[in-house]
Amino acid sequence: MLNRNLNALISGQTNYKRMKLSQIGEFGIIEKIIEPNFRKLLGENQFGIGDDCAIMELDKSLYQIVTTDLLIENTHFTRDKISAFDLGFKALAVNLSDIASMGGAPVATFLSVGFPADLEVSWVQEFMQGYRDLSEKESVPLLGGDTTKSSSQIVINVAVIGKVEKGKVKKRCAAKSGDIICSTNVLGDSAAGLRCLQNNIVDTEYAKHLIKRHNAPVPRVAEGKFLSQFKQVHAMMDISDGVFSDIKHILKASKVGAKIYCDRVPTSLYLKTACKENNWNKMAFSISGGEDYELLFTVEKEFFPLLKERFKQEFDRELFVFGEIIEGEQKVLYLDDEKEIDVESGFRHFG
Amino acid sequence: MLNRNLNALISGQTNYKRMKLSQIGEFGIIEKIIEPNFRKLLGENQFGIGDDCAIMELDKSLYQIVTTDLLIENTHFTRDKISAFDLGFKALAVNLSDIASMGGAPVATFLSVGFPADLEVSWVQEFMQGYRDLSEKESVPLLGGDTTKSSSQIVINVAVIGKVEKGKVKKRCAAKSGDIICSTNVLGDSAAGLRCLQNNIVDTEYAKHLIKRHNAPVPRVAEGKFLSQFKQVHAMMDISDGVFSDIKHILKASKVGAKIYCDRVPTSLYLKTACKENNWNKMAFSISGGEDYELLFTVEKEFFPLLKERFKQEFDRELFVFGEIIEGEQKVLYLDDEKEIDVESGFRHFG
Repeated sequence: MLNRNLNALISGQTNYKRMKLSQIGEFGIIEKIIEPNFRKLLGENQFGIGDDCAIMELDKSLYQIVTTDLLIENTHFTRDKISAFDLGFKALAVNLSDIASMGGAPVATFLSVGFPADLEVSWVQEFMQGYRDLSEKESVPLLGGDTTKSSSQIVINVAVIGKVEKGKVKKRCAAKSGDIICSTNVLGDSAAGLRCLQNNIVDTEYAKHLIKRHNAPVPRVAEGKFLSQFKQVHAMMDISDGVFSDIKHILKASKVGAKIYCDRVPTSLYLKTACKENNWNKMAFSISGGEDYELLFTVEKEFFPLLKERFKQEFDRELFVFGEIIEGEQKVLYLDDEKEIDVESGFRHFG
Repeated sequence: MLNRNLNALISGQTNYKRMKLSQIGEFGIIEKIIEPNFRKLLGENQFGIGDDCAIMELDKSLYQIVTTDLLIENTHFTRDKISAFDLGFKALAVNLSDIASMGGAPVATFLSVGFPADLEVSWVQEFMQGYRDLSEKESVPLLGGDTTKSSSQIVINVAVIGKVEKGKVKKRCAAKSGDIICSTNVLGDSAAGLRCLQNNIVDTEYAKHLIKRHNAPVPRVAEGKFLSQFKQVHAMMDISDGVFSDIKHILKASKVGAKIYCDRVPTSLYLKTACKENNWNKMAFSISGGEDYELLFTVEKEFFPLLKERFKQEFDRELFVFGEIIEGEQKVLYLDDEKEIDVESGFRHFG
């Protein structure tokens, strides 16, 4: 049914006049309406929708990369669950994470905001302070934007322009059979932080940590630049929707399969404590939970020990391995203690 | 009162905790909260808020220019007054107009959309067709963006990257005493089109023309590039808020004054007919009405006859003169039939 609808959309048939967006499945389908219609307008050395950022040739040695994200109140956040400061920080962070995921450095940011007239001025001040805090940490200027009224909801759109050396750009399509699958940090904290907020668990030490990871994720810009130096690092992206969803993009783009060892997906003590105390399914968070904004990458197995050591020297943190790329069908085999498990049915409706 | 509030905002005083955005006057003040806080993060050869686009150095001979605009349903448009096709066209047009106003050429566009789940798929198709129609006319690719759910309102953010030769970039700050003030076309049609829509006058020939000019304005990209060739063309911007508001930006940036001859501001036969039939004040539309997206520029008086001739050859249309730049205070003297008039009080609350 989905495919029939999709074909109708792309071919511009009009007998779906009364069909609602909610009926055509994932919202990502809109990209499938958009993309085929615009492909032929692409210039030489311009690459559109597909990776975390669009890619344009800047000169002989550099690519310019561009990303943009739209955040709408009550869809992406609610004012009672995130401070204005954290929201300003996060709105920029999720975009810088896209730049990081291609190994790039941010050059300039652009901020469009729609604010209701009854919003408190102090809220706007704090929002801008959060945006500025991360801008300063990453030394990236706010160069422009738009400020406008919104009748009720807060609307935020951030666009970031970055750059990356042509030889160093990392994409989703470069994973190779035999690569191992890694992340730059533990996973699942952010989704567990959201669950804490939803369940009004906010005072314990673990909850404070997990909520901070959800509300003010740190984009891995330095880590992305570090990893981009190495030819042995193949595919890279950031984890925005969770490993379960995001790994599929790498498999599709690279035309490979993968094994994920669920019991090796790294988790924090905070997440372990939260799951123990609340009887939550830890794997649901670590594998299927989104918004960690850590980097997910594949690297040649033989090179990993050296990479891990160099990374430790540079960042004083570990890299984690929890899977491998295999030949064949673009599917993920999930293993727990070496036994295959069906996470698909268990996690599909999570978060 | 306004200034006291503003100083409090910039200095980050917190005793305005309960103040609402609606109490601090124009929404543009937000830019005044934002700008001072971010200025020191600017790199060399980066220029932020102030002109129609942000400016970044691309290489020895080129600037990159970037603009972004946020459109929110019920603030900027209502679904019953504009077709999806026209809205897609206009969302891109207003951004291309900013690129045009600096003499630039568009290179790539980025579209973020937030759509309610109950929106009809055919609406989205038509919206994208309108966006694509103008993309194709201006040969500019859609390189990326974001698609997301919105709980109720349609939200659209467009960002456009353009380029312009360093020696040809036009800014607001270059007007000189003795320049004449010109536009690339008649003015006021768009605002009159909006009035037609509001008053449900939609069937007459004049109304159809005026509404089209409001709902699907043509960005003057070729005209902007043409004008940017000439050193004698000094300041340039696009008319988005109306001459009455927009000329102030040129005066402030250029530190000059101006005379506007109200009776010479060019108007169309359609506008004249509409005003006659409905007893509307024509000057309110031509001087104070916004969204024409024509170019407003200043040029050396002696050069104008040649410029007008070359423009006519190139575009088969006229350039119009309706004012001059004068020394002194950053004020506009409005004249009608050589007599000074007080348009300020008459037009302030228009549109």
